[in-house]
Amino acid sequence: MSQIDYFTEANSVEAVNARMGEETDPRLREVMASLIRHLHGFVKDVGLTQAEWEAAIDFLTRTGQMCDDKRQEFILLSDTLGVSMLVDAIQHRRPAGATENTVFGPFHVDGAPELSMGASISLDGKGEACRYQGRVLGLEGNPIEGARIDVWSDNSDGFYDVQQPNQQPEWNNRGVFITGADGRYDFIGIKPVPYPIPDDGPVGQMLASLGRHPWRPAHMHFLLEHPDYERIVTHTFVAGDDYLPSDAVFGVKDSLVVDYRESTDESATWEANFDFIMVKK
Amino acid sequence: MSQIDYFTEANSVEAVNARMGEETDPRLREVMASLIRHLHGFVKDVGLTQAEWEAAIDFLTRTGQMCDDKRQEFILLSDTLGVSMLVDAIQHRRPAGATENTVFGPFHVDGAPELSMGASISLDGKGEACRYQGRVLGLEGNPIEGARIDVWSDNSDGFYDVQQPNQQPEWNNRGVFITGADGRYDFIGIKPVPYPIPDDGPVGQMLASLGRHPWRPAHMHFLLEHPDYERIVTHTFVAGDDYLPSDAVFGVKDSLVVDYRESTDESATWEANFDFIMVKK
Repeated sequence: MSQIDYFTEANSVEAVNARMGEETDPRLREVMASLIRHLHGFVKDVGLTQAEWEAAIDFLTRTGQMCDDKRQEFILLSDTLGVSMLVDAIQHRRPAGATENTVFGPFHVDGAPELSMGASISLDGKGEACRYQGRVLGLEGNPIEGARIDVWSDNSDGFYDVQQPNQQPEWNNRGVFITGADGRYDFIGIKPVPYPIPDDGPVGQMLASLGRHPWRPAHMHFLLEHPDYERIVTHTFVAGDDYLPSDAVFGVKDSLVVDYRESTDESATWEANFDFIMVKK
Repeated sequence: MSQIDYFTEANSVEAVNARMGEETDPRLREVMASLIRHLHGFVKDVGLTQAEWEAAIDFLTRTGQMCDDKRQEFILLSDTLGVSMLVDAIQHRRPAGATENTVFGPFHVDGAPELSMGASISLDGKGEACRYQGRVLGLEGNPIEGARIDVWSDNSDGFYDVQQPNQQPEWNNRGVFITGADGRYDFIGIKPVPYPIPDDGPVGQMLASLGRHPWRPAHMHFLLEHPDYERIVTHTFVAGDDYLPSDAVFGVKDSLVVDYRESTDESATWEANFDFIMVKK
C-alpha cells in the first residue's frame, strides 16, 4: 500500500490544488483553486468524453490561432459567452441612478480629434444624421465641467472606420468633446445600424451550432472620463431595434435604451437625448 | 419598464443559456449549459477583475499561438491542470483487478516495427538495459492470444526519438509485440528516466508562477489492443522515482508502479515484470 495520495477521479480537485507551492501569490492561489474546482466540476457534471475533449482542444487552438493584431477571437469568445459583461458587471456595481457600463468592444481608437460642441463626426456623408445631446451630471444632479466624452459608432454600412479599406475617411464617426460649466454635450453623428460581430472564425462556428446569430443591435459608444469621477464605458442603444433582446454579446441594459425622435430643428433627421450620471471617486 | 429580461449579474447563466436555439443538438446543449454555469460561477466566486480577465485572454491567446504540428500547448495545459487525467478516469472506470489507464501523451507514433518476443527496442546503445516481461490476461486469469502491445519510452537522455535531431535512430525505444497462446510478452528496453514536459511556453510560465516543476517520473508507455477487449493506454512507472508524488501531469496510479529489480540473467541489467489485465468488450 502506497503512502502517496495519487490523483483519482474522486480527489482530483484537491490533488491538483495541493501542488501549488507555499510561495504562490495568495490571489493567484485563490483564482486557480476556484478555476480548478469549476473546471473539474464541469468535466464531472457532463461526463466529458475523450472525443469532446479533443474537440475542445481543437476549438481552443483554432481560436488562439485566429488572433492577430486586428482580430481577438478569445475576446469574441468571452463576449459571446457572457463572460465579458459579467466581469464588467461585477467590477462596476454602481448606486441607483448612475449610468451603467457595458462592453468596451474592440473598435475604440485612442487619439480621436477633440471637437467643439455642435460639430459633426460623420465624415463620409452616409446615413441619417442624428443630433446627440444631453448633460453630464453627478449623482446630486450637479453639472460636471471638464468631462471628456469620447464617442464612436459604425457608419450606415455597419462598419467602423478601422474596418474600412485604408481606414478612410480617418476618424469617421469618432470624436472627443469636453463639457463646459453647464455639463452639456451636443454633437451630430448618425443613427447607428446593427452589425454582426466577425463570424468567419471558430466563434462564428460555435454560434451557428448553438442556433445563435452574430448581430449586435445599433448603438453609439461613449467613454466618459473626469479626474474626480469613475470612468464610464457604455453605449446608448436605439429603442425598437430588432436585436435588442438578442445582442450577440449581451451588452444591452434597460437604462441604456434611448428613444431616437425626429429632430425638432434642421440640423439633423433624428435626435437622441441622454444624460450621463457619474459617480465620485 | 421593459418587457425584455436583459443580461444582469444575477441572471447571467440563464440569460446566456436561454439563447441556445431549439434545434441545438441535445448533448451540445447539455455540455454548453454546464460550461456556462461553471464559467460564470468561477468569475463570480473570485470576483474576477478586468486586469485578471485581460491576463487570461492574453494567456489563452499565447497558448493557442504556441501550437504547431510538433507542439500542442493546450494539451499540456489540460495535462498540467489534471483535466486530461480526469477525462481519462471518467471514461475508463474499470472493474477491480483490471489494468488502469493513464495519459496517452504526445509522443506516440503509429507504425513502429513489429518485433519478435525477446527483441531489443533500444537502438542507440544508451542507458541501462531492462528486460520487460509478463502476461496479458483476461479478468479470469485467461491468457490472451493476439494482443497487440505497442511500447515506447524516452532514451537515457530523457528524449523520445521524435525529439531528436533527424529523429535518428528511427524507432529508437519503440516496438510492437503480438502475444502468442500463452499471453506472454518479453522485450529488452532501457530503464527509463524522468524528463520535463516542454516548459518554454505559457504553460511553463504558469507552472513556475504556481511553484510547480515540469518533471514527469520515469515511465514506459504501453498501448494494448485486441479485437475482443477494451483498449488500454497506460504506463508502468519506476518504483522509488523522486517524481512519483509530483508528476507534472498527474499520471501516476499505485497499481502502475513497478519494482525494477536487478536482472537474474545476462540479457539486461534490470528486469520489470508486469501483467496486463484486459476487460472484455
